[in-house]
Amino acid sequence: MSETFPFDSAAVIGLGLIGGAVVRDLAARGVRVSAYDRDPVQLEAARSDGVVSRALDASLRGLGEVQLVVIAVPVDAALDVLRLVAAQVCAAGSRTLLVTDVGSTKGRIESLAVELGLAQRFIGSHPMAGDHRSGWSASRAGLFAGAPLYLCAPPGAAAPTLGLARRLWSELGASLVEIDAREHDLRVAWTSHLPHMVAATLGLALARGGFRRDDLGPGGRDMTRIAGSSPEMWTAIGIDNAAAIDETLAAAEAELARFRDALRRSDAGRLRERFIAARAWFDQ
Amino acid sequence: MSETFPFDSAAVIGLGLIGGAVVRDLAARGVRVSAYDRDPVQLEAARSDGVVSRALDASLRGLGEVQLVVIAVPVDAALDVLRLVAAQVCAAGSRTLLVTDVGSTKGRIESLAVELGLAQRFIGSHPMAGDHRSGWSASRAGLFAGAPLYLCAPPGAAAPTLGLARRLWSELGASLVEIDAREHDLRVAWTSHLPHMVAATLGLALARGGFRRDDLGPGGRDMTRIAGSSPEMWTAIGIDNAAAIDETLAAAEAELARFRDALRRSDAGRLRERFIAARAWFDQ
Repeated sequence: MSETFPFDSAAVIGLGLIGGAVVRDLAARGVRVSAYDRDPVQLEAARSDGVVSRALDASLRGLGEVQLVVIAVPVDAALDVLRLVAAQVCAAGSRTLLVTDVGSTKGRIESLAVELGLAQRFIGSHPMAGDHRSGWSASRAGLFAGAPLYLCAPPGAAAPTLGLARRLWSELGASLVEIDAREHDLRVAWTSHLPHMVAATLGLALARGGFRRDDLGPGGRDMTRIAGSSPEMWTAIGIDNAAAIDETLAAAEAELARFRDALRRSDAGRLRERFIAARAWFDQ
Repeated sequence: MSETFPFDSAAVIGLGLIGGAVVRDLAARGVRVSAYDRDPVQLEAARSDGVVSRALDASLRGLGEVQLVVIAVPVDAALDVLRLVAAQVCAAGSRTLLVTDVGSTKGRIESLAVELGLAQRFIGSHPMAGDHRSGWSASRAGLFAGAPLYLCAPPGAAAPTLGLARRLWSELGASLVEIDAREHDLRVAWTSHLPHMVAATLGLALARGGFRRDDLGPGGRDMTRIAGSSPEMWTAIGIDNAAAIDETLAAAEAELARFRDALRRSDAGRLRERFIAARAWFDQ
């Protein structure tokens, strides 16, 4: 264990892109890592890469023995996992100092953590380090270096717990942004969920037109890269944050309608104004 | 002049990203290049980079002395330039073997070329090598290496002229796709114009939500890179190809509405189906 690293042991639940990167980064710092993934293939891959000391079973028994618990499963599954985690972390003799998750929405899981009596030991995390790839094989050490990371402390969180969460992610290289969970969810509806929905929209429209991704130029390929993101993860995010995302999609629909209106009128002046405004936003 | 290169002299009208790259690539092959840009600053920059032998004035006098004429201005301005070009290229004593343009729409300029009596000497070109940057300073040699490039020969084009166009772009490294001009315009409405309009739409929606490009993660930044493209160029493309683009935007609007409907009903099954379909398209 590094002298400055605040944990000697950790459990990571979910070995996808983000969970896998956490495992690799923790192991590289000398932390003993226990791990679970519902897919035995992913779990075995992580074990054979030599970074997981111990595989947990689906009951997650033994969690109370580790100092750090990281939940890295899709946001819908994270709620059930948190219930299992809470039962052990809140039991007598637990050594657990911090429970965190890495989901893209933070309001619902924070509410559940408070309800389960974890307010003093839970801090929500959301690293902005996603990718269209997923699974253990897509994960890599150093994924969080330079990435923005939202930290959401529940009302009444313990200051030492928040301090541990800050140290954890700072050591992994992330740039921390501390924010209220509900404010976070509104913000990422715009900055992350909207772009994902629009990428999928563009892919589906092109499919309907009979075009493949290979038919696109570099701009179009960039715009559809995240259309290949995990359906499970994005369905869960969509349902969790539906109202906020719908508001952002309504804004996109209104802007699209304005483009169509200018095109149908052959209104070059209005079209130019819109492109100028888009570039001004880009150059901001 | 390279032994295999089919031209000893050329004139390039418009020294933006694409025109500039053509100038640099031709000069590198020993071609004497005359050039014009309505912006004297761009023209002077090209001259001082040592790749332009001779600056033309706005009348474009002297064009008939060169073997190759490349029109590289926005598609609306290209029509007026083609009229000036035709007057000289069709005059007695002209040495010009090939006139081409590099615009993103091909139907209208081809019709005008035929009308002006250029059918035997005109081939439309569309290199898919755009970028959000523009101007001489953004141009570079080798831009067309590996880039797809559409070639559109007017009905009744002369075979030797088409052969010259093929050799020109093949020497510059492009991968040629020969296609009818109208079919081209429908195709690029989907593969190029739609992604550009959607990028601008996303930028404008985010502006309305109060978010900057810096607030986005890597996916969102990729999706808005081409929102910074030249407003002049894209206004001209939009007006030229309005009906076809509007059809593609209608398809995007319908897909967006389906996302909103699934979100408002909290219909996880339908949402998942859509993300699965988007990923299947991506993986195709």
